[in-house]
Amino acid sequence: MTHEELLSLVDRALFAEIGYTDEQGRQNIRKVYCVWHKGLKHHLISTNTSSAHVQSLLQNGNACLYFSDDAAFAGLCLYGRAEIRTERAYKEMLWNPGDEKYYPQGIDDPDYCVIEFIADAGRFYRFDGKGTLSAEALTASCAGREYENGYAASMQSGAES
Amino acid sequence: MTHEELLSLVDRALFAEIGYTDEQGRQNIRKVYCVWHKGLKHHLISTNTSSAHVQSLLQNGNACLYFSDDAAFAGLCLYGRAEIRTERAYKEMLWNPGDEKYYPQGIDDPDYCVIEFIADAGRFYRFDGKGTLSAEALTASCAGREYENGYAASMQSGAES
Repeated sequence: MTHEELLSLVDRALFAEIGYTDEQGRQNIRKVYCVWHKGLKHHLISTNTSSAHVQSLLQNGNACLYFSDDAAFAGLCLYGRAEIRTERAYKEMLWNPGDEKYYPQGIDDPDYCVIEFIADAGRFYRFDGKGTLSAEALTASCAGREYENGYAASMQSGAES
Repeated sequence: MTHEELLSLVDRALFAEIGYTDEQGRQNIRKVYCVWHKGLKHHLISTNTSSAHVQSLLQNGNACLYFSDDAAFAGLCLYGRAEIRTERAYKEMLWNPGDEKYYPQGIDDPDYCVIEFIADAGRFYRFDGKGTLSAEALTASCAGREYENGYAASMQSGAES
């Protein structure tokens, strides 16, 4: 798969699975809504600070993030770390009208946080073969990019084409 | 979610994600085709013995298995262990006509094996709440059952209703 195909897979995905070790030392997977990306290396996920996966990631940030498209038989597993961001800039960027129903105190609700996943390696799978992504390739994929809602952008370009 | 709803989620899923620690000590996720189940506790996955996830699971069988239905906003994460089965009974049960394209030597191909995932705990999520499954509840869910291709059975009952 080319980098463009991998970027498209990530942008179309809407959801991803985050894999981590929980506080009981078990492997754990949680499905997360993940539409903000900067290249293939950086990904943002808004969630409840009190949720079990955030509490586990605060203890042990080693994690993986898996994007897939079942119809295309394609998958990408990114390996790296998850950082819990509580700075307003992150929380403001991901805030959507109506999110008050999850976070009654609004953007500054202490139960609202953002997980930043930062990849340092990756592996992809498709019907036509598999391959790996190096730390250098992941860094290069961010060059000149800012965080963007890739799902919204991909829907937009789909509507125009 | 009731046990019947969880059994239905698993039967409909077709794919699951297996979460494990790889040989580099990283959290890893692989999407797997998973349609053979015995209750909520036992699940079978046919795959290549040489694949990276099988080799990792032979080193460290602690794993989780995640089933989800995005349309229903429902997910189930099972915690337990993965055992690699090479006995003919397992390999025969999961063999499909045409699998020779993956395993040229047929059922006895040494590169063909079956992962048996055995859960001892679980956690489920749906729009209307979340909950846990105990080891006892998982064992009870198998009572009087044999392994069955749950996806084929669910498609069949769907066609009849």
